[in-house]
Amino acid sequence: MAMLRAAKHAMRSLGSTAPEAAPFSRMLHASPGSKKIVGVFYKANEYASLNPKFVGCVEGSLGIRDWLESQGHQYIVTDDKEGPNCELEKHIHDMHVLITTPFHPAYVTAERIKRAKNLQLLLTAGIGSDHIDLKAAAEAGLTVAEVTGSNVVSVAEDELMRILILVRNFVPGYLQVIKGDWNVAGIAYRAYDLEGKTVGTVGAGRIGKLLLQRLKPFNCNLLYYDRIKMDPALEKEIGAKFEEDLDTMLPKCDIIVINTPLTEKTRGMFNKERIGKLKKGVLIVNNARGAIMDTQAVADACSSGHIAGYSGDVWNPQPAPKDHPWRYMPNQAMTPHISGTTIDGQLRYAAGVKDMLDCYFKGQEFPAQNYIVKEGKLASQYQ
Amino acid sequence: MAMLRAAKHAMRSLGSTAPEAAPFSRMLHASPGSKKIVGVFYKANEYASLNPKFVGCVEGSLGIRDWLESQGHQYIVTDDKEGPNCELEKHIHDMHVLITTPFHPAYVTAERIKRAKNLQLLLTAGIGSDHIDLKAAAEAGLTVAEVTGSNVVSVAEDELMRILILVRNFVPGYLQVIKGDWNVAGIAYRAYDLEGKTVGTVGAGRIGKLLLQRLKPFNCNLLYYDRIKMDPALEKEIGAKFEEDLDTMLPKCDIIVINTPLTEKTRGMFNKERIGKLKKGVLIVNNARGAIMDTQAVADACSSGHIAGYSGDVWNPQPAPKDHPWRYMPNQAMTPHISGTTIDGQLRYAAGVKDMLDCYFKGQEFPAQNYIVKEGKLASQYQ
Repeated sequence: MAMLRAAKHAMRSLGSTAPEAAPFSRMLHASPGSKKIVGVFYKANEYASLNPKFVGCVEGSLGIRDWLESQGHQYIVTDDKEGPNCELEKHIHDMHVLITTPFHPAYVTAERIKRAKNLQLLLTAGIGSDHIDLKAAAEAGLTVAEVTGSNVVSVAEDELMRILILVRNFVPGYLQVIKGDWNVAGIAYRAYDLEGKTVGTVGAGRIGKLLLQRLKPFNCNLLYYDRIKMDPALEKEIGAKFEEDLDTMLPKCDIIVINTPLTEKTRGMFNKERIGKLKKGVLIVNNARGAIMDTQAVADACSSGHIAGYSGDVWNPQPAPKDHPWRYMPNQAMTPHISGTTIDGQLRYAAGVKDMLDCYFKGQEFPAQNYIVKEGKLASQYQ
Repeated sequence: MAMLRAAKHAMRSLGSTAPEAAPFSRMLHASPGSKKIVGVFYKANEYASLNPKFVGCVEGSLGIRDWLESQGHQYIVTDDKEGPNCELEKHIHDMHVLITTPFHPAYVTAERIKRAKNLQLLLTAGIGSDHIDLKAAAEAGLTVAEVTGSNVVSVAEDELMRILILVRNFVPGYLQVIKGDWNVAGIAYRAYDLEGKTVGTVGAGRIGKLLLQRLKPFNCNLLYYDRIKMDPALEKEIGAKFEEDLDTMLPKCDIIVINTPLTEKTRGMFNKERIGKLKKGVLIVNNARGAIMDTQAVADACSSGHIAGYSGDVWNPQPAPKDHPWRYMPNQAMTPHISGTTIDGQLRYAAGVKDMLDCYFKGQEFPAQNYIVKEGKLASQYQ
């Protein structure tokens, strides 16, 4: 395992200076013993006991407490992550590993990294490490890794659900039912079939591809924009057309799905100007990251009707404050950040975190695709 | 076109007795002139003007008024269908054609048929003619026809949406958002991936097949029960396994979808006893007809948790009264009857009704698959 700070730390312990070419995995082996591991998850309270497979919450603790403690490690788990007196802050100075999730993100700032003198490893239980200052983590020689692939199916399924919810105008129908109303026209006047519509995904990585595969039998016109054109055989199998230029693709779309990580390039990508160029009545699904959108520009375009529907589970920040404008804009079908934390997804990312911790204790490499920051370098999708 | 009463009516006009073997289409030609056509649709009020393609409502009148009137026919359209003083009642005695829809069903009882002395043709704008007493219609020599295929894609898409809404526990997440809450655990403890689950459809006709095709990329275990086993090639393409016995299939299913018409055989099919034998935590999607379920048995099983989620757009009766128990049972994701009346669906069934009226005026046959009652016989799915 390559871990600059682990190496530096090991060097300090050994009282020597590491030659730059030394294998870092050996360095980690040079730093054995009990580790302090901190996990920040959402709290389940009364829901914790309702499902024995519910491992993704504070109470479930990824199901790895007994395993960690039996090996002599210390495992602190909390949901208290904000402000100077929070539980997380008490452990910043001496933790070796921090496990976080995108669903209840502990924001790992440069300032926190600076104070975390023993920190070697940041693990994301799930996918998406933008709540971590990756540049600062790289500079500090930390390793950042995700459980790549753990919940891509979960998110892709959820995106297809949201496309259908918007296209078919589900929410007003449900609200009529619980209010005791019955007005078919009030739903039908803007309910459509998905068949025949143009769907474009911004990003066609693991999740985008799974979405396109699931969209194929719906007989849509499928488009994708990505840094990389797919292999022609895969493109044919999926039935989607590559679009080289984002702003050429977007105005063609009846439905746009965001499947790109949050980076400095994608932050605020959908601002007032870009939204203004979309087809009037466009539907947008965003399970990627809230900050890819300009919050107020989305709310304004929903109010004017330029965006006819917006659905997603990601917000900026999270948890969304009570006065977040997306809670109150018309034609939204939002939820809290949930798509990647189904019970099936939790079981997979809990197993992935355990595997990586095991590698870490043994000084072994992680699966290559899991690295987000390694040896001071960011993974390509974050560059 | 075969139409016993048209024939009898024509015979009366001609003052002769028709030989039983005479081609009925000729008989219809023998009864030319202006027809009185009544359409019963849902009213759109303020929504009518919001979409020029919104033809399925009273105001839109299927977009055939000018065409009908230019040919000298009379066209009455209303949503007022209940009680002795309703608008529909005023026209029962002299109408020739009645167009109805499943979304706002005009219940065509034996008693109404008896009083409709001039009636020849009952057209369903959409699919599903169970709001008509088909036996009485057959005995009276009426023709009943639907626009078969017009909205099967619309309904199948909607079913897949509802499967995902239930599996992934969407509704509590949405309600949190609009109430200003944020509690990921309260959703996640019972949110799952669709992948790997067993989905069974009761009925695999046009809609059931389209649903199975759309489910294929989700990597589920797909089962179907039907009167007829699919062609092996189609079965392989769809990837679903035939189940000969309904009660053998049902307890295997994590998710059950109802895709059978309402007939005397299917009415009340899901009663307390049958529901009791389903897997605990089963999810049910029913866009077929409300009366296939025992209303109270479904509500009770949702309350006990035996059914973990129920979603559909069909009720018994429609419109659903304010105190219908399905409005208030836990874990429901219901809407008014909407899945087959998307704008795309409306345009297709409006065109189909126009085509059949044109055939009727010209004494030509309808497409064979459209007939529900023809020459005194019910279509096979209603037998």
